[in-house]
Amino acid sequence: MTAPITFEDVIAARARIAPYLTPTPLRNYATLDAELGVRVLVKHDNHLPTNAFKARNAMSFMTALAPEQRARGVVAATRGNHGAGLAWAGELLGVAVTICVPHGNNPEKNAAMRGFGAVLIEHGRDYDEAAAHAAELVEQRGLVLAHSTNDRNVIAGAATLFAELHEQALHDPKGLDAIVVAVGGGSQAVGAIVTTAKFRPGMPIYGVQAAGASAIHDSWHAKERLTVADALTFADGLATRATYDLTWPTILAGLTGFVAVADPVLAAAIRMLLRTTHNLAEGAGAAGLAGVIALREQLMGKTVGVVLSGANIDAATLRTVLDG
Amino acid sequence: MTAPITFEDVIAARARIAPYLTPTPLRNYATLDAELGVRVLVKHDNHLPTNAFKARNAMSFMTALAPEQRARGVVAATRGNHGAGLAWAGELLGVAVTICVPHGNNPEKNAAMRGFGAVLIEHGRDYDEAAAHAAELVEQRGLVLAHSTNDRNVIAGAATLFAELHEQALHDPKGLDAIVVAVGGGSQAVGAIVTTAKFRPGMPIYGVQAAGASAIHDSWHAKERLTVADALTFADGLATRATYDLTWPTILAGLTGFVAVADPVLAAAIRMLLRTTHNLAEGAGAAGLAGVIALREQLMGKTVGVVLSGANIDAATLRTVLDG
Repeated sequence: MTAPITFEDVIAARARIAPYLTPTPLRNYATLDAELGVRVLVKHDNHLPTNAFKARNAMSFMTALAPEQRARGVVAATRGNHGAGLAWAGELLGVAVTICVPHGNNPEKNAAMRGFGAVLIEHGRDYDEAAAHAAELVEQRGLVLAHSTNDRNVIAGAATLFAELHEQALHDPKGLDAIVVAVGGGSQAVGAIVTTAKFRPGMPIYGVQAAGASAIHDSWHAKERLTVADALTFADGLATRATYDLTWPTILAGLTGFVAVADPVLAAAIRMLLRTTHNLAEGAGAAGLAGVIALREQLMGKTVGVVLSGANIDAATLRTVLDG
Repeated sequence: MTAPITFEDVIAARARIAPYLTPTPLRNYATLDAELGVRVLVKHDNHLPTNAFKARNAMSFMTALAPEQRARGVVAATRGNHGAGLAWAGELLGVAVTICVPHGNNPEKNAAMRGFGAVLIEHGRDYDEAAAHAAELVEQRGLVLAHSTNDRNVIAGAATLFAELHEQALHDPKGLDAIVVAVGGGSQAVGAIVTTAKFRPGMPIYGVQAAGASAIHDSWHAKERLTVADALTFADGLATRATYDLTWPTILAGLTGFVAVADPVLAAAIRMLLRTTHNLAEGAGAAGLAGVIALREQLMGKTVGVVLSGANIDAATLRTVLDG
């Protein structure tokens, strides 16, 4: 398997982010287990400063920059959590951050990014057009591009999540039998694969995508890289339309299985987390649990790790989910 | 001022709970500040294992018991968070926990308490009748009563929250000008008063109650102990009808001001926390912020500490709040 990062990269990322991010809890909820028939260990990355695991990715990226790069400033295209992570890390480290979002981007996410001091540029009709503008700014202003997925330090940041999870599960009386991981760009999936190879070689790892944005899922089953025309899901953290160069080979080789879940299942997973854990999740943040729901038959009786990876759901979407 | 606990009691409680509870974050949200015109530091006790500050109170109580008392087991009457804290602490320490709840108590809270291994007894029409049954069990079975408020170790547990808050605010560039604290039984208020006397003597501390359950608020303004006939608020953590022996004298002497907020203001505070911080709060958990809203004129431009003290809101109540 040719992974874009080594386990040593993960250790280095942990050391770099440790001054800024404390480990998040890994918790078990009897009421959740009883509903599912699967014993679930929930990794609470919703507790991180930006309420999303992307804070790890961004801080790992920022702390790996050379002083000269920090001085130039960072630019990224994002729909939200990647940008919020960069803005947060930039504020702490004194690095100027410019974020390109498409017109009509979620106003709560825009406000959060501005709140951390980022310069927000609304440009283009969708993510791809915003990304093209970010690339222009790299050319014109010499800014350093922070890609949400195709970056080794970003992926190593996501991997710190699973290094923590594996270590914490060592203290669990029943251990860990599998991980179910949401796939947007694939940084979490690669992080799970690289760390599991060290901590629990051979343990199954399942991927989950939204059925309306299933390019990587479809590619995995077809064993060739496919793109989809649309990314139609309320889980904007999963709204990708293609595979990514740096994560695709490892995902293809390293996942045990890959399921696609419809939006109503993502909504049901959000409601289940609210009801049994009283934690807020956005669609992508509940996707790991939605995958457990989809894989319930084969995971029955096992102990499964999932990440509550983000909580940045807006009030209108939450109301729709609750009415589900 | 005759406080029921000393600062040394708080230090001792911190040492006892430290192996089980890590400090919760103190965070500032630019978007929240911008909406309020007040700079708010949010203490995230919603991150604790039972999603409520009562985990501190319960663990402080449990770890102070003599081995002989632990062996007898603990009983308490509760509507939810006190019982969940005791059940959680009891499971960790191997202490049997019996919880008396009134008939019709919130089923999600009952499920959470049972999930931590507590024996749940449904008895009586309201909290007072459940409490009477708990007292009978003390007589009949020799169980140790864990009162939610009238207990020095419980109050010292709540005070650890404010010791942390004060220390964390030392690292804040703008410091801390005031604290606004929700009052159910008063353990938080006494904790804030005792710790502030050490860290920032003379700093204002304001109390908040629900307008529909305002006994302690009314008593504070009347300077005599009053009871109210009903506790009518959706914030069940604030639904008390009287003052408490152990907290009342300190509250009377130590608070700078005391406001009562109507349920729609509590609901607005929950929505504001969702919108600007993407953290879930129950009614009592948002009451500190509701107090800031009520005191906005006089707190304008200041830095104010509030506790997001609990997140255990059920889905039906959350839907009502969002529709607000």
